[in-house]
Amino acid sequence: MAKSPEEEHPEKAFGWAARDSSGVLSPFKFSRRATGEKDIRFKVLYCGVCHSDLHLAKSEWEGFSLYPLVPGHEIVGVVTEVGSKVNKVKVGDKVGVGCLVGACHSCDDCSSDLESYCTKMILTYSTIYHDGTVTYGGYSDTMIADERYVVRFPENLPLDAGAPLLCAGITVYSPLKYYGLAEAGKHIGVVGLGGLGHVAVKFAKAFGAKVTVISTSPSKKDEALEHLGADSFLVSRDQEEMQAAQGTLDGIIDTISAVHSLLPLIGLLKTHGKLVMVGAPEKPLELPVFPLLLGRKMVAGSATGGMKETQEMLDFAAKHNITADVEVIPMEYVNTAFERLVKGDVRYRFVIDIGNTLAATKP
Amino acid sequence: MAKSPEEEHPEKAFGWAARDSSGVLSPFKFSRRATGEKDIRFKVLYCGVCHSDLHLAKSEWEGFSLYPLVPGHEIVGVVTEVGSKVNKVKVGDKVGVGCLVGACHSCDDCSSDLESYCTKMILTYSTIYHDGTVTYGGYSDTMIADERYVVRFPENLPLDAGAPLLCAGITVYSPLKYYGLAEAGKHIGVVGLGGLGHVAVKFAKAFGAKVTVISTSPSKKDEALEHLGADSFLVSRDQEEMQAAQGTLDGIIDTISAVHSLLPLIGLLKTHGKLVMVGAPEKPLELPVFPLLLGRKMVAGSATGGMKETQEMLDFAAKHNITADVEVIPMEYVNTAFERLVKGDVRYRFVIDIGNTLAATKP
Repeated sequence: MAKSPEEEHPEKAFGWAARDSSGVLSPFKFSRRATGEKDIRFKVLYCGVCHSDLHLAKSEWEGFSLYPLVPGHEIVGVVTEVGSKVNKVKVGDKVGVGCLVGACHSCDDCSSDLESYCTKMILTYSTIYHDGTVTYGGYSDTMIADERYVVRFPENLPLDAGAPLLCAGITVYSPLKYYGLAEAGKHIGVVGLGGLGHVAVKFAKAFGAKVTVISTSPSKKDEALEHLGADSFLVSRDQEEMQAAQGTLDGIIDTISAVHSLLPLIGLLKTHGKLVMVGAPEKPLELPVFPLLLGRKMVAGSATGGMKETQEMLDFAAKHNITADVEVIPMEYVNTAFERLVKGDVRYRFVIDIGNTLAATKP
Repeated sequence: MAKSPEEEHPEKAFGWAARDSSGVLSPFKFSRRATGEKDIRFKVLYCGVCHSDLHLAKSEWEGFSLYPLVPGHEIVGVVTEVGSKVNKVKVGDKVGVGCLVGACHSCDDCSSDLESYCTKMILTYSTIYHDGTVTYGGYSDTMIADERYVVRFPENLPLDAGAPLLCAGITVYSPLKYYGLAEAGKHIGVVGLGGLGHVAVKFAKAFGAKVTVISTSPSKKDEALEHLGADSFLVSRDQEEMQAAQGTLDGIIDTISAVHSLLPLIGLLKTHGKLVMVGAPEKPLELPVFPLLLGRKMVAGSATGGMKETQEMLDFAAKHNITADVEVIPMEYVNTAFERLVKGDVRYRFVIDIGNTLAATKP
């Protein structure tokens, strides 16, 4: 008979888990593996709340959710133990873990530091690990991972506001680089000013691009221009404004995960422009082909980045003082945070103060 | 009052034109401009029949058709007169004209030899030229164009079977190059074995790629493998076959202009693979976003190429003995050819023998 989550591994752990597709989180006792020779164990201090935590807690992506489910893949903390063959960090160092904790390490993608595209990739939570047990995420007191999946957290990067870079940050940094948009003088559009979008504006500006934010909501204009430093703002429902901006963008990072129209966005692109989707609408979108042909344009996708690029992104963020705008919350607030997330009521990322508030919720 | 087509220019010309959206062609007397200092005039010998000739003759692309409409943009012939400043060719040389006869020559695209993406591009027929008159295509006895839009036809390239390269050829050559698919060792899929598809197989093979043809029709298998030299063949309706080929292709050239499903094609791509559309379905296609994200894949478009690349393509074709497979027809057969084209009843391109058969149709 399979052992209970609390007994299957030698190291006790405590976190919050969803038990079913209601998605409601509650205190959860489980366990973590002993420290292997290439493993890094750390005490979790902060963990960001990504929209996919909510999707998976509620089993909204079919086939991905294994209960009990401990979410969290924007995890930072301080090293408490390292395996005998670990040279990357030492006890006391600040580290982070993002969306992945494993992959095959032998395919073309793994060999190219693109573990995030390995078909055997192991997600940080709700996935079967190499040892046959389920992975648990960062809404928990401790974390352990193979050193390949642990990044060094730069000294000057705040742990709370830096945590969301481990998913939101790399998910927008990676396509800006891969699609040739991370260059001074480019004109980049960012669609949707949420957790991903607001960080995309900051990275694109740091690369030297001119940035236009495109949003359904005029209420975000001041925020985009004055606080985030975007150069211009388009209300996507304002046809006159959109028409005037036709053919002006080299690339667009589209963070919207609701079904929406691609035609106006394709129209905003210059010839040879690139519309990159990082949000994942559940239903197919309508793709008009003629405008793609006439302007040699593309609609492309991008997932999170590989580990080498994640480290590069963190170092770049530290150098350019890029962090997420966060609302730090106590552990017991997480269900309320989920409700507010559904309504888009957060500017722009919740981060759970695990280090100071989790222990108090122990039954 | 505007002059009639027969009187608006000094040089008499004769061809076949559609008079209305019935798309039926019939003999047509018109005129062409005097030879300007940068113009090349030539006697037309052959002209390919492209599917877009049919679309435009029948006004199936809204707003593009100006009647009377003389189709034809795969035009080859022999030079009869050159302007005082023309050095490119001399009287007696073999030349060709493809889809374009003009552009602005000052935008970024024109400056990068990408006239085909200039927003002021002038099509070879059914477009208003710089002088305010309508352009007429190659279903006619003579042609004239600015030397920038005239390509030298390599000596060893047959005029009849080479003519379709000026549209079908460059339309598949250009995306293979631009999207990084024209490399030895790549595995390329070609969807649809028609005018464009069969030439795409030949170019991809010449670049050293492994080529898989994907078709709804099993009847084309022998032809693809034995005659065109493809390495493998997939029947797109055979789910088992398609499933077994998942994740095997670096890129796909999709020549289908009917509405069709993209999901199975995206599935055939490796991670980071590229699905390039060169056919133009009238209605939007369904785009599933998740598979694009998970594999960092793209759906891209490509139109015909610029003039520099068209010359490069022709020279490459001559070197590698690449021509289209053609059925040469007399001028008076063109309406029947249109009917057969609608049914896909041609392997793979009709070419009109203008030089030997047009004159006899003069009223």
